[in-house]
Amino acid sequence: MGKVAVLGAGSWGTALAIVLADNGHKVHLWSHREDHASEINRTRSNEKYLKGITLPSSIHASSNMGSVVNGVEHIILVTPTQAIREVCKELVSHVSEKVIITHASKGIEPVTYKRVSEIISEEIPREYYYDIVVLSGPSHAEEVSLKHPTTVTVSAEDLTVAEKVQDLFINEQFRVYTSPDLVGVELGGSLKNIIALGAGISDGLGFGDNAKAALITRGLAEIARLGTSMGANPLTFSGLTGIGDLIVTCTSSHSRNWRAGYKLGEGSKLDKVLAEMGMVVEGVRTTKAAHQLSKKQHVDMPITSGIYQILFEGANPRDVVTQLMTRIRRHEMEDLTNILDDQMNN
Amino acid sequence: MGKVAVLGAGSWGTALAIVLADNGHKVHLWSHREDHASEINRTRSNEKYLKGITLPSSIHASSNMGSVVNGVEHIILVTPTQAIREVCKELVSHVSEKVIITHASKGIEPVTYKRVSEIISEEIPREYYYDIVVLSGPSHAEEVSLKHPTTVTVSAEDLTVAEKVQDLFINEQFRVYTSPDLVGVELGGSLKNIIALGAGISDGLGFGDNAKAALITRGLAEIARLGTSMGANPLTFSGLTGIGDLIVTCTSSHSRNWRAGYKLGEGSKLDKVLAEMGMVVEGVRTTKAAHQLSKKQHVDMPITSGIYQILFEGANPRDVVTQLMTRIRRHEMEDLTNILDDQMNN
Repeated sequence: MGKVAVLGAGSWGTALAIVLADNGHKVHLWSHREDHASEINRTRSNEKYLKGITLPSSIHASSNMGSVVNGVEHIILVTPTQAIREVCKELVSHVSEKVIITHASKGIEPVTYKRVSEIISEEIPREYYYDIVVLSGPSHAEEVSLKHPTTVTVSAEDLTVAEKVQDLFINEQFRVYTSPDLVGVELGGSLKNIIALGAGISDGLGFGDNAKAALITRGLAEIARLGTSMGANPLTFSGLTGIGDLIVTCTSSHSRNWRAGYKLGEGSKLDKVLAEMGMVVEGVRTTKAAHQLSKKQHVDMPITSGIYQILFEGANPRDVVTQLMTRIRRHEMEDLTNILDDQMNN
Repeated sequence: MGKVAVLGAGSWGTALAIVLADNGHKVHLWSHREDHASEINRTRSNEKYLKGITLPSSIHASSNMGSVVNGVEHIILVTPTQAIREVCKELVSHVSEKVIITHASKGIEPVTYKRVSEIISEEIPREYYYDIVVLSGPSHAEEVSLKHPTTVTVSAEDLTVAEKVQDLFINEQFRVYTSPDLVGVELGGSLKNIIALGAGISDGLGFGDNAKAALITRGLAEIARLGTSMGANPLTFSGLTGIGDLIVTCTSSHSRNWRAGYKLGEGSKLDKVLAEMGMVVEGVRTTKAAHQLSKKQHVDMPITSGIYQILFEGANPRDVVTQLMTRIRRHEMEDLTNILDDQMNN
């Protein structure tokens, strides 16, 4: 059991550090704030992000990235997506030996439309890593830290590298599958945040479970359409990192995307919602990227487009949902059959 | 706007009667109990099944099946699945002109493994109906009666007949899609009750959203496998009558299957649970049928098998869930790819 570096001491980074510590690894947890790192070491907990959880003694926090990544074989990147480039730029000056880079961040970069593994590969020279692995799935950090049963998926272009990361994390409570579909795993985890916003909006409007289930189902179909146009296997969206993650995000008040949507549904404007939450709401950026991508790729995404109008064009949420419900589409299977056709032709 | 017969005055039958009345139809609602029918007419409500909802004046309840179905073009069957044969036998003596039969019942008959449309076609001579249509989807009756946005799917062998039923029900709040996959729509609505029991068991054990999402996702994969082996289109399980209905059922305490599972997870035995609920729990019968079918069709269904052991063999729920979580399956995509292969080969 060796030393592992986890970069990012938010709730998910800390929960993954606990899993690694439980598996016998020595974990160096990097926070960009020195006072945060000191507090974690002093209190043996990360109260702001993972309330009430005592950290194993084999987790050591630090804001010194050089010492954190020194001598490790695995680096786990768990920062907000918008900080990935910056963190990678800093990381480059500290790595000397070849490592396996795993990321657990979700999102698509605005303007460039890059996935997280693509961003990392642009910032870190190829000779410094064996491969870039994504870890994703239905996993509230709090539940993982409480050792409730959880399943996630890892994927990479080189599946043998993904299997090394599977071995690193897997234990009785934390089950890790592998998938060969890196693009689909990354896109599923990112695009589902759009639908989570939509589910929150529907709940905030006072609509019921029927409307929310319709929105999730139709939303899944449209993110699968976009994902397939970008090279993903459509079946990945039926798996843990697609529908699984979507269910967890859309049906739980833990999710900040759902909570932001809820406030929008109640009538608050985006600026006010984001100011009140004081946290990154990844789905907002992803909605903008996906809306632009859908035009570029000529993919029909009515739900994403409706959410975009609510977020950025001041549209009334009730009007948008009503408009989505009354769209004329007689055959449900049309969409789904299109996805399969795309798959067959690829 | 004509007269429509709805057979079955439970919560779903009454909610569908309200939709039809809202669309301008005269609705005759059949209850097998005369006192129940009288009470509905006297109070203009169906308090036991749809609390607090006032029924439109164009709904008339009766226990006289002959007068209920006299002169109608549409008969909507909404009885518990185990009563379908009996109700059809009675119906035969009353129909004289050709009708469209729509059913909204979910389940698979034990021993025969018949779907509801197959049961109806065995009991009612072919010359009495244009076709048999199924109506299914994510739809709590209570929400439909409150006119919350809801989507459902109708399907039949003859799609033009399904489109007539679509026209009968569709309105601003109640959106009706059509699907050509009768087998998939019927099986999705039935088999999801097994997974709803499982989701309840997981919640009853005190596990979290991560475990439940994993169970729903893996459960969907296995019911899609069984459905495909029986002739369904696997994509139907990604639609409203598959994942959509599953989400509504697994994430809501409205669902009696979920509630029964919850009590099992807390440690109660099946007999006690069923006695306490005093209502039909369709998923119990469906689990037995699907478990037997999976052996007959040689389809691997570990979750269904685990729930069968809890229901009928006294297995400890915690042991079963732990065993499901620790099954060795390294590649998530293996299952999904098998489904696609099946589809390609059909």
